[in-house]
Amino acid sequence: MGGAVYDFRSDNVGGAAPEILEALVAANTGTAAPYGDDDHSRRMTEGFGELFGRPVHAFALSSGTGSNAVALAAGANAYGAIYCHETAHINVYECGAPELFTGAKLVALPGAGYKLAAAQLDEALQLAGRGNPTRVQPFALNLTQPTDFGTLYRAEEIRALCDVAHRHGLVVHMDGARFANAVAALGCTPADLTWRAGVDILSFGATKNGAINAEAVVVFDEALARTIPYRMKRGGQVLSKARFVAAQLARYVADDRWLDRARQANAAAARLARELEAIPGVSLAAPVEINMLFVRLPEAAVAALDGGPFRYYKLGREVRFVCRSDQEPEGIAALVACVREALT
Amino acid sequence: MGGAVYDFRSDNVGGAAPEILEALVAANTGTAAPYGDDDHSRRMTEGFGELFGRPVHAFALSSGTGSNAVALAAGANAYGAIYCHETAHINVYECGAPELFTGAKLVALPGAGYKLAAAQLDEALQLAGRGNPTRVQPFALNLTQPTDFGTLYRAEEIRALCDVAHRHGLVVHMDGARFANAVAALGCTPADLTWRAGVDILSFGATKNGAINAEAVVVFDEALARTIPYRMKRGGQVLSKARFVAAQLARYVADDRWLDRARQANAAAARLARELEAIPGVSLAAPVEINMLFVRLPEAAVAALDGGPFRYYKLGREVRFVCRSDQEPEGIAALVACVREALT
Amino acid sequence: MGGAVYDFRSDNVGGAAPEILEALVAANTGTAAPYGDDDHSRRMTEGFGELFGRPVHAFALSSGTGSNAVALAAGANAYGAIYCHETAHINVYECGAPELFTGAKLVALPGAGYKLAAAQLDEALQLAGRGNPTRVQPFALNLTQPTDFGTLYRAEEIRALCDVAHRHGLVVHMDGARFANAVAALGCTPADLTWRAGVDILSFGATKNGAINAEAVVVFDEALARTIPYRMKRGGQVLSKARFVAAQLARYVADDRWLDRARQANAAAARLARELEAIPGVSLAAPVEINMLFVRLPEAAVAALDGGPFRYYKLGREVRFVCRSDQEPEGIAALVACVREALT
Amino acid sequence: MGGAVYDFRSDNVGGAAPEILEALVAANTGTAAPYGDDDHSRRMTEGFGELFGRPVHAFALSSGTGSNAVALAAGANAYGAIYCHETAHINVYECGAPELFTGAKLVALPGAGYKLAAAQLDEALQLAGRGNPTRVQPFALNLTQPTDFGTLYRAEEIRALCDVAHRHGLVVHMDGARFANAVAALGCTPADLTWRAGVDILSFGATKNGAINAEAVVVFDEALARTIPYRMKRGGQVLSKARFVAAQLARYVADDRWLDRARQANAAAARLARELEAIPGVSLAAPVEINMLFVRLPEAAVAALDGGPFRYYKLGREVRFVCRSDQEPEGIAALVACVREALT
Repeated sequence: MGGAVYDFRSDNVGGAAPEILEALVAANTGTAAPYGDDDHSRRMTEGFGELFGRPVHAFALSSGTGSNAVALAAGANAYGAIYCHETAHINVYECGAPELFTGAKLVALPGAGYKLAAAQLDEALQLAGRGNPTRVQPFALNLTQPTDFGTLYRAEEIRALCDVAHRHGLVVHMDGARFANAVAALGCTPADLTWRAGVDILSFGATKNGAINAEAVVVFDEALARTIPYRMKRGGQVLSKARFVAAQLARYVADDRWLDRARQANAAAARLARELEAIPGVSLAAPVEINMLFVRLPEAAVAALDGGPFRYYKLGREVRFVCRSDQEPEGIAALVACVREALT
Repeated sequence: MGGAVYDFRSDNVGGAAPEILEALVAANTGTAAPYGDDDHSRRMTEGFGELFGRPVHAFALSSGTGSNAVALAAGANAYGAIYCHETAHINVYECGAPELFTGAKLVALPGAGYKLAAAQLDEALQLAGRGNPTRVQPFALNLTQPTDFGTLYRAEEIRALCDVAHRHGLVVHMDGARFANAVAALGCTPADLTWRAGVDILSFGATKNGAINAEAVVVFDEALARTIPYRMKRGGQVLSKARFVAAQLARYVADDRWLDRARQANAAAARLARELEAIPGVSLAAPVEINMLFVRLPEAAVAALDGGPFRYYKLGREVRFVCRSDQEPEGIAALVACVREALT
Repeated sequence: MGGAVYDFRSDNVGGAAPEILEALVAANTGTAAPYGDDDHSRRMTEGFGELFGRPVHAFALSSGTGSNAVALAAGANAYGAIYCHETAHINVYECGAPELFTGAKLVALPGAGYKLAAAQLDEALQLAGRGNPTRVQPFALNLTQPTDFGTLYRAEEIRALCDVAHRHGLVVHMDGARFANAVAALGCTPADLTWRAGVDILSFGATKNGAINAEAVVVFDEALARTIPYRMKRGGQVLSKARFVAAQLARYVADDRWLDRARQANAAAARLARELEAIPGVSLAAPVEINMLFVRLPEAAVAALDGGPFRYYKLGREVRFVCRSDQEPEGIAALVACVREALT
Repeated sequence: MGGAVYDFRSDNVGGAAPEILEALVAANTGTAAPYGDDDHSRRMTEGFGELFGRPVHAFALSSGTGSNAVALAAGANAYGAIYCHETAHINVYECGAPELFTGAKLVALPGAGYKLAAAQLDEALQLAGRGNPTRVQPFALNLTQPTDFGTLYRAEEIRALCDVAHRHGLVVHMDGARFANAVAALGCTPADLTWRAGVDILSFGATKNGAINAEAVVVFDEALARTIPYRMKRGGQVLSKARFVAAQLARYVADDRWLDRARQANAAAARLARELEAIPGVSLAAPVEINMLFVRLPEAAVAALDGGPFRYYKLGREVRFVCRSDQEPEGIAALVACVREALT
């Protein structure tokens, strides 16, 4: 008798949403040209065009790291710098993939709330030595939305950062591994958070929100799209049977279920945060804006959790809980009860 | 009224084999650790161990190019050379991915039948300048089995090449994108064609034979396995929900259906070759050993095919037909009839 | 009638010391094997061995950036990180050369006095994720001695940093572009500041102290020396007629004139600092430990200097003055007078 | 009592021409801006402009390999191919430097006389897969003039190759490590062999013909010059005291002594070839067009040479003799006598 396990490790421990899996299965008909030259891929691009309210180029990949690396490479010069927050996923958790694909240096800036601020970016870029051959030359700004600590850029913050970036000649890349959670939380349109605010290229993540190894690079700047097929191939990112990923993504954006799932996940995290915070001795490391919490727990609580049916990660002095759309309410209740009990 | 289309473009235009798709769907239960640290991935590694009759390390990826690049990087020095046939897939059709992942130079040798010969490799390596800092230092031999032109290395040829390579301090990598077709055609065991003959690391392709973007890097040399997780991450090759690829691969090697499919595909190509060859004016560019044919066709025949319900590729002066396990017999018959008619 | 110009831009605006130039000229006799396989190169290595009081490997190069990049590459893994201060020359002024030669990411840490501190390095390395494939793996620590802001690490500070680095498995590289000024200022032996304190590999700069495009990579760890010839060639750092650089370096370390020159340059900067600091309204941005000053000057003083026969650089809100061993005393006096006059 | 040694190893075993060394020594006056922003560098660029009869950009470097790598990088895309002869110096003797600096793949073609032929290049480029993302995209043609085997392209051959290259969108780079010997032998102007024939960028070697680690990248296509300063810095190719290299190059092209030296070296090789060829049993592997010979010698002759005061290289089954402008006539006579004696 195994008993239930409640898994708060990450949103990618979850499976596929039913309609996404159905779309994948349904794509298994007849033959299709490989490498993205198929009808599912075309439908996917159309779907992204409708979602964003304008023509786009879209490419299907299987890896978020690969998507980021390819997207950043699209605008790279050959002696360049990518500006990002010091906690950016591309800076910390991708083992140098963006550097390998772009040949660039990542210039990591600090910033409150795990976010970059426009004024500080402007100052950094003014000191970057544009035109000085001893200095790497900035070509891209990376925004992780939501950040890896679950905080969010508002549309106007994005706009201000993009304005600075564009003024200095940079392309703006948004790493949207959890883009759904951001859209759901902010109540904006996908367009508002991206190209209308100045984003040039987006890593649109679907895997963490119900798809199976399905990510898209969505390009809003025509010129950036041109070299992506080469960059993808050179990075081993081209899928032989791309239709099975494209079909998922086409289905993903075909209705609002992706947003519903994201809302549920966000709500589960909000509930967990609210209930944990009410326990004396527990505090949140950051406001909970999406589906993840960073919590400071007394040792007794950690010990109690480790003895229970819970899975989660410890990051430094904090513990992280990530909720999925299908997070079991009884798991949340059990976790809260476990912590409360340990601290009374 | 669409009418049937007969697709001979490549084996990756086909879909998924039923049991493979079932395995993928069945993996959609509960939560699982990401990035390959899950039970399906462990089962996959065990399955490869059983298939090859010895302990192995195995890694699941979505891309054949990625698999080759990662496998070659596993043994790379930092100023190195990879020896391969001039028609090798890694040399021609991967847009420099092996170079990007390894930092190495590809030294491309000619060779009859699209294959390297041991004596010629030995001579090339003797002239390679081992220890001379003006020369790149060889670290790997790449064998494409089957070759991109559908020819096969016999086990004893592999053994002879591996002996030379090892004598010169090289790691041997086999690009087995169509490994199933080779095993099916040669009637050897997978072990005989790989580690028993001296192969150190294998790109084991499943996508072209019934899987969905599922490839494995199978490692026979313990030391080579150590850095692969880093090389994979840095190359954007780590899968977030790896279980869905690992489950396919575990199923793929769980019984002999993969070999049955490969045999059927090979047989379809043999039949097509036999019937085409019987038509005056038609000749084969190479003996047909697996599921692909390179055929020299008079222009009239090409024009007739282009006017018919056939899909295939023209490569230089030849046309290529690739057969799948589910190649429609009526498609083969129709293609032969079309060519015969055009030439009489 | 041009009139004198007083040049405080950098120590590399100066020429060659007489005996260094003589050594170069004297090397122009007979034939010599190219690429460092000559008697001058052997004498150079012996000379460094005597200077450092132990056997070393030494390589002659023409570029400080090249020396740093090659030295760091000697210990590189293929998915690595180099830890350095955020103001390190390799991080700011080499246009990504260390990244190109090593494939690594530079992890830039803050630190008081433009220096790293052992405790902070230890903490950063503990959080670096050793063994976690999503994280780049640290392999080197870079110390710039003196720093680019003219501050100095004491021998015991170097020792403490090296201990931390070695405990975490890192190689320690010292960028000694102005190594002479450090040795002269600290009154230690070259050995005390390097291998006795734990430094594994040193970029030994001579160009800024009287040589002509002559730098050495001096290796204290046998294992690191092995791949350097390949790394040098691959980086275009091997000199065809190496004897003309090796002869300079052999002469440079043959007696104490290099230290005399460095002492003179340091003393000139100290005098300039002392006299400027005595002027109301002038302040030093950092203590002056070697031959460079960073000074905060009122605008009137800057304007006066710009109108006079002075050459110097403005860096952000400060001005930098660098002194050479042959800095003209009358130039120092004139500069001080100019500033004093402007501010009274 | 040492006795004379006659050195036929290479032209870079020689020293500096008197006027070149004088120019270097004379540059040791006053201060000068570093990194090429000095009067000697400006004079050098003017000098090259006069030599080539048109405005050029020119950059001083210390390494021939560095010059080639930087020059090729100037026109590189990020997934590219450089076409060259299989015996090209960049393909064989630079340990992957061009690949490191450019990120490109070298596509090595065969060709009679160690030279590429226009028709064959055209065919190769037609099959290169322009626009196909699975293929690296050609961006440069490299011509080694003279070739590493001492053969020469005529101006009309260069023109034909450049026409093909430009038609396919490639930049043409000439590796002129021994450019002087080519100009001297062909009796053309430097312009005729370069930009008038279509060459876009030239590695102009001076080191092998009397300079001290002094090479220039000479740019005939304005657009290519723009990124070179960054590429140089990133490759560790920027010289701190550039004036000492620029002064040599400015002097080198200031009169015709460079051509006189090259003529003398060529003539010495021609004499050596003539006299050796007259000995029964000796044959030349290639016509002798510049200052180097590849000779097939019976073993007895090789043994005799090895016992004598001669230095030279064995390359495969041949021996190579290279002559300098100051090659001792008695050395040539002695070598010929030694071989003759051994074979009679």
